[in-house]
Amino acid sequence: MSNWFSESLYNSISQKFEIKKTLFEGRSDFQDVLLFENDRFGKMMALDGIVQTSTSDEHCYHEMLIHVPFFFHGNVQRVLIIGGGDGGTLREALKHKTITYAKMVEIDGLVVEQCKKHLPEISCGAFDDPRTDLLIGDGVKYMAETSDMYDVIIVDSSDPVGPNTDLFGESFYKNCKKRLNQNGILITQNGVPFLQPTELKESCAFFKSFFQDASAYLTAVPAYYGGYMALGWATDNTALRKTPLETIKERFEASEVSTRFYTPELNISSFMHPKFIKELIDAS
Amino acid sequence: MSNWFSESLYNSISQKFEIKKTLFEGRSDFQDVLLFENDRFGKMMALDGIVQTSTSDEHCYHEMLIHVPFFFHGNVQRVLIIGGGDGGTLREALKHKTITYAKMVEIDGLVVEQCKKHLPEISCGAFDDPRTDLLIGDGVKYMAETSDMYDVIIVDSSDPVGPNTDLFGESFYKNCKKRLNQNGILITQNGVPFLQPTELKESCAFFKSFFQDASAYLTAVPAYYGGYMALGWATDNTALRKTPLETIKERFEASEVSTRFYTPELNISSFMHPKFIKELIDAS
Repeated sequence: MSNWFSESLYNSISQKFEIKKTLFEGRSDFQDVLLFENDRFGKMMALDGIVQTSTSDEHCYHEMLIHVPFFFHGNVQRVLIIGGGDGGTLREALKHKTITYAKMVEIDGLVVEQCKKHLPEISCGAFDDPRTDLLIGDGVKYMAETSDMYDVIIVDSSDPVGPNTDLFGESFYKNCKKRLNQNGILITQNGVPFLQPTELKESCAFFKSFFQDASAYLTAVPAYYGGYMALGWATDNTALRKTPLETIKERFEASEVSTRFYTPELNISSFMHPKFIKELIDAS
Repeated sequence: MSNWFSESLYNSISQKFEIKKTLFEGRSDFQDVLLFENDRFGKMMALDGIVQTSTSDEHCYHEMLIHVPFFFHGNVQRVLIIGGGDGGTLREALKHKTITYAKMVEIDGLVVEQCKKHLPEISCGAFDDPRTDLLIGDGVKYMAETSDMYDVIIVDSSDPVGPNTDLFGESFYKNCKKRLNQNGILITQNGVPFLQPTELKESCAFFKSFFQDASAYLTAVPAYYGGYMALGWATDNTALRKTPLETIKERFEASEVSTRFYTPELNISSFMHPKFIKELIDAS
């Protein structure tokens, strides 16, 4: 008998994956943690029944989270990652030679531990990089209490269920803003607009109420079901997104960053939205 | 007990939809035909166990198939659609006032009949438009025998299984080329590159061998599982894709075409590929 994992994110639809081999199954203080192998997607992780990452398509997400803001900014030295337990976002940030300090605040130590053990091809040693400062703790609490400043803050969260609800709230975003340097950028995981329109709309509404430039850009991650995924963008520097493609290309060349998904053109085109997504952003 | 439809397109992964109500279930001379209602996707059609369309996301596909080539071309008068039994592609083509003749060749009369009956919100009366000339017949045979000429040919096919295999073959594409007017464009459904890389690679290789400009552009259709979907692009006029955005915007305004997904910016950005897709197109 074959054994399948069916995602429990939505009613009336689901994606399912045949489990070739279970790598880990357990419960942390926060959530159910499942790691398994699938013939098409490679190694996968699900938390509370929702797919979080796979070794075959994680670059479609992690590269876009990091390189779009980093190349628009041009000189990111201090980055903060909230969440991101698999280490993929951290890995992409550390590819940038400009980075001197990468703080990561992940609530679930078991996720980091199991990902280091079973998904080392995602973190690629990022947790051992001397620039990395990993805190196992609550990102919401950290943002409320810290006095550290950052050039880019990445909210690499799960969906707004379980331990992550507050990562989509107004006071959390306000605290992020306080911790951004001049030219600083806040980037957030904002769900799949076709199936989660409210998530994008609400976050954009918060961003607009206290940032000069608020929008979202797009990627498509096969294991995040439902077409395009939106990544939230918020900054007070309205010039950043007007950076010409030629400049982005020069920065990309100079950075020597290697990618599998990202290209400099995507820095521009990922902000060109299908009409129904543009309307969600504009309506907020 | 709830009743679910599980797609049979791939091994080891699947998407599934709860069937709220079955609208039609039967077998034509060519394939199994299933129409049903789902709470999230609305009305859906599956052929031989593979999702073909849904009323909630069909515009992400049909609008991009038509408006990208039409607005790059600028004056499409005669269009040929191979396949497209639900009528959505035909509907989008007929939105253009420039169209004087729209030929559609669909192999499966039962699909057209059942879609007219159960999915009228997709065809929106397109089959009754005086400019429409519907032929129930084999598109491969039609292309080999016809002497009619077209400005744009759209291959709106299912995946290359069942009755559609020849719609992805070299001799079919060659016959399409023969039937294109000057400035003519061939557009094809080319699958989901993440899960069907060979489909894109092979079609692009054929296009390159006998068209001056061969590429693919992208959309993301939630019910076509796996992230981005590729639409093949082939023409002998290498200037078409260099049309400036301002011109596309002017044409779009003048056309009075209304859309839910398409925007003029997508005419440009949909050709900006993630690296792994660019490599598939370039390698072919």
